[in-house]
Amino acid sequence: MVFKKITLIGTSDESFDAAADDALDRAEDTLDNIYWAEVEEFGVEVANADGREYQAEVEVAFELE
Amino acid sequence: MVFKKITLIGTSDESFDAAADDALDRAEDTLDNIYWAEVEEFGVEVANADGREYQAEVEVAFELE
Amino acid sequence: MVFKKITLIGTSDESFDAAADDALDRAEDTLDNIYWAEVEEFGVEVANADGREYQAEVEVAFELE
Amino acid sequence: MVFKKITLIGTSDESFDAAADDALDRAEDTLDNIYWAEVEEFGVEVANADGREYQAEVEVAFELE
Amino acid sequence: MVFKKITLIGTSDESFDAAADDALDRAEDTLDNIYWAEVEEFGVEVANADGREYQAEVEVAFELE
Amino acid sequence: MVFKKITLIGTSDESFDAAADDALDRAEDTLDNIYWAEVEEFGVEVANADGREYQAEVEVAFELE
Amino acid sequence: MVFKKITLIGTSDESFDAAADDALDRAEDTLDNIYWAEVEEFGVEVANADGREYQAEVEVAFELE
Amino acid sequence: MVFKKITLIGTSDESFDAAADDALDRAEDTLDNIYWAEVEEFGVEVANADGREYQAEVEVAFELE
Amino acid sequence: MVFKKITLIGTSDESFDAAADDALDRAEDTLDNIYWAEVEEFGVEVANADGREYQAEVEVAFELE
Amino acid sequence: MVFKKITLIGTSDESFDAAADDALDRAEDTLDNIYWAEVEEFGVEVANADGREYQAEVEVAFELE
Amino acid sequence: MVFKKITLIGTSDESFDAAADDALDRAEDTLDNIYWAEVEEFGVEVANADGREYQAEVEVAFELE
Amino acid sequence: MVFKKITLIGTSDESFDAAADDALDRAEDTLDNIYWAEVEEFGVEVANADGREYQAEVEVAFELE
Repeated sequence: MVFKKITLIGTSDESFDAAADDALDRAEDTLDNIYWAEVEEFGVEVANADGREYQAEVEVAFELE
Repeated sequence: MVFKKITLIGTSDESFDAAADDALDRAEDTLDNIYWAEVEEFGVEVANADGREYQAEVEVAFELE
Repeated sequence: MVFKKITLIGTSDESFDAAADDALDRAEDTLDNIYWAEVEEFGVEVANADGREYQAEVEVAFELE
Repeated sequence: MVFKKITLIGTSDESFDAAADDALDRAEDTLDNIYWAEVEEFGVEVANADGREYQAEVEVAFELE
Repeated sequence: MVFKKITLIGTSDESFDAAADDALDRAEDTLDNIYWAEVEEFGVEVANADGREYQAEVEVAFELE
Repeated sequence: MVFKKITLIGTSDESFDAAADDALDRAEDTLDNIYWAEVEEFGVEVANADGREYQAEVEVAFELE
Repeated sequence: MVFKKITLIGTSDESFDAAADDALDRAEDTLDNIYWAEVEEFGVEVANADGREYQAEVEVAFELE
Repeated sequence: MVFKKITLIGTSDESFDAAADDALDRAEDTLDNIYWAEVEEFGVEVANADGREYQAEVEVAFELE
Repeated sequence: MVFKKITLIGTSDESFDAAADDALDRAEDTLDNIYWAEVEEFGVEVANADGREYQAEVEVAFELE
Repeated sequence: MVFKKITLIGTSDESFDAAADDALDRAEDTLDNIYWAEVEEFGVEVANADGREYQAEVEVAFELE
Repeated sequence: MVFKKITLIGTSDESFDAAADDALDRAEDTLDNIYWAEVEEFGVEVANADGREYQAEVEVAFELE
Repeated sequence: MVFKKITLIGTSDESFDAAADDALDRAEDTLDNIYWAEVEEFGVEVANADGREYQAEVEVAFELE
């Protein structure tokens, strides 16, 4: 059994939780066997966003078939 | 005055905040003199949980009597 | 174009998100050109607060004129 | 010449060496030009495995054509 | 569900794998619900040991009841 | 909006700047929506290169469609 | 031979050395086989202390019997 | 003698060296007693810039009078 | 309640403790509401000092009004 | 008593353990008073080696006479 | 085959690239079998230099015979 | 001008300051052009020492001629 990890950055205008979920939702759209995720960093984009854009950098681990 | 730090990992199917509170609640069940806590890491368990299990690794500092 | 980063610690009796917003709100009171922010650390003050005080240490980057 | 790095986690019920080899074996199944690998972390899964499952998180660098 | 992590350092005159197993064996003597372990550091004691003493510092996570 | 980050290592026999550009050039060949890049490490390969080969390990972030 | 590490924070109104000794003194009150200690962090508490309270976070390693 | 450190991010459309110089130039506009600087991070802004904007995050240390 | 952190480097020809105190003394000259401080690094300047100049880089946290 | 630390990288076509031993063997050829060693990093060279070359970067501490 | 790593800091009044080359040039004066180098840190000395002195801390790895 | 850094660990039965001085004293016995030093770690040896042996790991930078 071998896992692969990819790094996604989800965004939300609501909260850090929603930003992390955004990244996980996207991962689940294309990957079947997600095992776990690790938050690498939280940030907020202000200047190039409408209001505050919460960001969550997340490493997602899934099993390779 | 001497403090001791222990490492707990709280879980929640709701949010990272609730997972951190879960760890703090557990600490307060058995420890009287908690002073502060530091979040070490946030993660999400997917494969071995029902839905997404948010996890918060927390260092809890309390005073030794 | 040169940016400067300052480090603020916001607090909230509600959540880590609110603590980060608290720091950003304060930054926006006195700074016009905020570009982004990075969360450095989340913590919880217990002994010297009423109940749990959530804290978010945040680096805020703004453009120098 | 440009390299790309991907992160794999190999597993073994024998040893950390075998877990790292597991990740490298998998990488060589699909990649031709592997140059080097770096061990990022060793761990052991206990609860969700039969016995102890040794894990090696490995960054594998290969040349892009 | 709340986990606790403790830090053990296992030793062996054979290998790093055996040193990590030594720490896990000790943990299983007194703890029922071990979930996973993370290797924090490998070292070798030379001066205060017979020959080379391989050491593995390991964080062991178990479920609190 | 979700971003993905990949890790590339560009090379140059001229300078670290050129090595970083090499990685970015390669990324732009196959990716449309690159947002930013972060330098992870600079190195120099000597033994297995003609003269000095400057290397720049770069994380490239792009928007997933 | 297996060691365990615990994290203590000693305090002193004199110096960092005295704060580290404070943590070690406390450890020796309850533990017989202390082998070594590592300083993790020095800090100073000002607002919630009389004058300056020097603090030393120390990991203490002792042999498990 | 007491020093203070501030964090600036210089930018350039040319190179990382020029971005670091940009931060130092700005610091020298308002500070008299700069002693040294440390590069914290190099990055490249792509999406919100014309072409590639090289960025250098620099900690600048100066003597307080 | 919002805190701000600044980074000062105190110096002393006596000891690291005195260097940290030097930074805190300077902070208290201009700031009223200092809460705590964290030592970031200890160093010794030799070539550009008379004898050994002990240095303590300290982050000082104070409450913004 | 003063110790010095040097950094060696041992290699082996067998295992990480053998690579660490290779570094220690070399250190013992020229140094009499080795006290301990710390593993800094494990890696695998593939492209410029026959098969897989396991590498162990090791800091070796010895007493200066 | 065993490698040794040493840490050099090259300087230049021109650029970070030239400072890194300065360290490598010096290493090649006395060492025959240099394999690779890793940049550990870039800095700029201002107060104790004529103009800006760019500095590159570099770990140089060479084969021991 | 090129600097070299070496890593020494000084010891003292008195204090961390004295342990750092011990390392610097030893460096000055054999090196003429010491420029600065950085403390990497403080520790205390207990089991293999008479009483407490304070240790200071110090990187010492000196100019190569």
